[in-house]
Amino acid sequence: MSENLDLLNRRRKVMGDSPLFYEEPLHFVRGEGVYLHTADGQRYLDCYNNIPVVGHCHPRVAEAIARQNRMLNVHSRYLSEPIVAYSERLLDTFGDGLDQVLYTCSGSEANEQALRIARQLGRGRGIICSNFGYHGNTAAVDQVSPMMHRERQSFSEVRSIPFPETYRPLHGLSGQHLIDAYLAEVQGAIDSLEASGIGFAGMILCPIFANEGLPRIPPTLLQRTVERVRRAGGLVIVDEVQAGFGRTGTMWGHQLMEISPDIVTLGKPMGNGYPVAALVTRAELLAAYREQVFYFNTFAASPTAAAAAMAVLEVIQEERLAEHARETGDFIRHGFADLAGRHGLIGDIRGAGLWVGVELVRDQQTREPAARETWQLVNELKREGILVSRTGPYGNVLKMRPPLVFQRGDAERLLAASDRALQRIEGLATDSQGDAEVMVSDMSGTSVRMRDR
Amino acid sequence: MSENLDLLNRRRKVMGDSPLFYEEPLHFVRGEGVYLHTADGQRYLDCYNNIPVVGHCHPRVAEAIARQNRMLNVHSRYLSEPIVAYSERLLDTFGDGLDQVLYTCSGSEANEQALRIARQLGRGRGIICSNFGYHGNTAAVDQVSPMMHRERQSFSEVRSIPFPETYRPLHGLSGQHLIDAYLAEVQGAIDSLEASGIGFAGMILCPIFANEGLPRIPPTLLQRTVERVRRAGGLVIVDEVQAGFGRTGTMWGHQLMEISPDIVTLGKPMGNGYPVAALVTRAELLAAYREQVFYFNTFAASPTAAAAAMAVLEVIQEERLAEHARETGDFIRHGFADLAGRHGLIGDIRGAGLWVGVELVRDQQTREPAARETWQLVNELKREGILVSRTGPYGNVLKMRPPLVFQRGDAERLLAASDRALQRIEGLATDSQGDAEVMVSDMSGTSVRMRDR
Repeated sequence: MSENLDLLNRRRKVMGDSPLFYEEPLHFVRGEGVYLHTADGQRYLDCYNNIPVVGHCHPRVAEAIARQNRMLNVHSRYLSEPIVAYSERLLDTFGDGLDQVLYTCSGSEANEQALRIARQLGRGRGIICSNFGYHGNTAAVDQVSPMMHRERQSFSEVRSIPFPETYRPLHGLSGQHLIDAYLAEVQGAIDSLEASGIGFAGMILCPIFANEGLPRIPPTLLQRTVERVRRAGGLVIVDEVQAGFGRTGTMWGHQLMEISPDIVTLGKPMGNGYPVAALVTRAELLAAYREQVFYFNTFAASPTAAAAAMAVLEVIQEERLAEHARETGDFIRHGFADLAGRHGLIGDIRGAGLWVGVELVRDQQTREPAARETWQLVNELKREGILVSRTGPYGNVLKMRPPLVFQRGDAERLLAASDRALQRIEGLATDSQGDAEVMVSDMSGTSVRMRDR
Repeated sequence: MSENLDLLNRRRKVMGDSPLFYEEPLHFVRGEGVYLHTADGQRYLDCYNNIPVVGHCHPRVAEAIARQNRMLNVHSRYLSEPIVAYSERLLDTFGDGLDQVLYTCSGSEANEQALRIARQLGRGRGIICSNFGYHGNTAAVDQVSPMMHRERQSFSEVRSIPFPETYRPLHGLSGQHLIDAYLAEVQGAIDSLEASGIGFAGMILCPIFANEGLPRIPPTLLQRTVERVRRAGGLVIVDEVQAGFGRTGTMWGHQLMEISPDIVTLGKPMGNGYPVAALVTRAELLAAYREQVFYFNTFAASPTAAAAAMAVLEVIQEERLAEHARETGDFIRHGFADLAGRHGLIGDIRGAGLWVGVELVRDQQTREPAARETWQLVNELKREGILVSRTGPYGNVLKMRPPLVFQRGDAERLLAASDRALQRIEGLATDSQGDAEVMVSDMSGTSVRMRDR
């Protein structure tokens, strides 16, 4: 432990208060499959990290990168086979006329280019986003990422609207009324952008509203949203940085949600940790964009980025990880449904594939968000050797999105540990108000916003 | 060749008109040291690529990445040794109280964060940049990158000013008059930003004005510019993406130019092709920024990024590549000075270390830019098996910045080939007006701006 403190102090000296998980941060030295190992020999079951999609340190990905790095790694202004072959294989997984790809290094950069395309080709510069979305850390992308703002901020070229959900429904509505209310929000934002002279460029959204807590969305709501955006001359940008690459039990979140985007952005799991990201769109949109903007990205589309991404895609497809994610995710959700019988804290269980969200409430009737208890659960699970986090605007949605190679036995361990941890927390709530109070100071909306995603 | 055409067509189908060098693009399959090898067995001496700073496919860098990828690669919200150890070693190369580092994936992302810091902490949002600078491809960074704009664009929060140089001096001035004129441009931009209510955040510049054609800058000009910016409450951002890591014969371009920046951004050569970049600043600036903005970057500061960057830094330091760059660069400049006696096209020879710029002119008295001839020279050198490019606002500066492991013998080969190529071009100019005319169509300012950097 004192070694960790020493490393933490050295880190603070050179990197300042660069964000860390947990009050006592974990120091990892080795990763393998669904496990991370600490310096002092502890092993953690990783139910949190979505980047190592095919498992930590997958030998095939590591070897593909190593082989390519010994052979050739250069920018994309020369011809080379790997990025072309990868692009072909990647685009085969898309429909809807999405037939070309543009590469970047990060999801932030992909969303930057997506916004630039929409603003160049749309009817104005105005973008609609969700009021608890996150799309990256650059200046333009930050404007459409209200989740990260410490206080509500407004930007002339952005309109953020409440996200749709059924558990805490918009204006208390349900069914068709909820859909109508959401479409009215979309239309209101379009009208406001047009009235202000900014004009309307498009809408960006995560197809599963991951940071919003994976809300259940009424059928046809998203399809009708897409229609509405298109009718107003806007482009639909779907951010698959969290939803993509098999995570939701289908290859792409927009396929799960049955919507047809104009631009899809990809990131996190694409290279299993190698920095590679992209956007996929239609050839005519990309050509029109290139007419106006010269885009080149030094590190993107390199042979090594392609080799990493190709190995990941091959593993996902050959091992049928999307199907596996659907089955294993359903098993976890059923398991939590069983636990809900014993634990009043469990208010709702949601998600798709191996993106599982469990919303904790103090009262199943009033649905009062149990943010403190969710934070306790994250920490209790850490004590059980399990990594999870939390999300949602109230910080009360347990967030689980393990590597897709997560097995039935891993899921059983997660469920058993959650059962024990919930029991302890429920005991704590009755026994010890004092302890609970201590944790509240760390539970402001700010820290929730800051720590998660 | 038909194989290349096939690959080119496949690439266009999936990546559109993604930028490529040369009318007949080169197809590389292997890199080693200062050489790149094509699919059909040709070997090219690389005098262009600055990213593989320690040489293409350096075994130590490849092995460091491979080893770390087999061990652990995860984001930086857990503690891990590699990024701390690298930060310590990196910061040892800085002075001026520059004592903390923030990591990104690309130079664009580093400059994004630099601009955000200046705008959060400066006296306003206004940024001064050079009128032929380039700092990246995101929306905010693009605004300070006039080199990439097809036509002059103006942005309310940016003032671009002419860069200082002595070969084609600002307003025809020299010495102290040139310095005064440049400072007046800086002050005029500050005044304009303040008068408009935007306020002044800072100035961003490449310390060697690389894209501007490596102009010779009068002594004290940059120091006095820095003073002027500071006095007005602005931050000085030095973009070392092209100048840094030993390229100029010193570790950092701002050290060569003897200026003290507030923020330094790093990129291209940092990981020898692995996507890693950073900004270095003072602890109090970073802390004040973090008070206001939550910044986290998924792929940055990972153990593998650290391993790649550490191997590169170790090789640069152990092999004393900065000193080597100074000696070899001086040898090349002397060689071109000799060639200038035989070739009237050579107007000026500039640069520092292994960043060499040779400005071509049609007439040594009038200094009429010889852009077409520079383009011809780039292509003639390609026929000689040598990779170079060109830069500068007139596209008439031959641009040479090989991997730093470039040897004396490589330099001799470059010089001999340049001699032959210049001879052929000078012959062509007298013999064949027709041929020359054909190439002009490809030589608009636009294509120069588009192709280079």
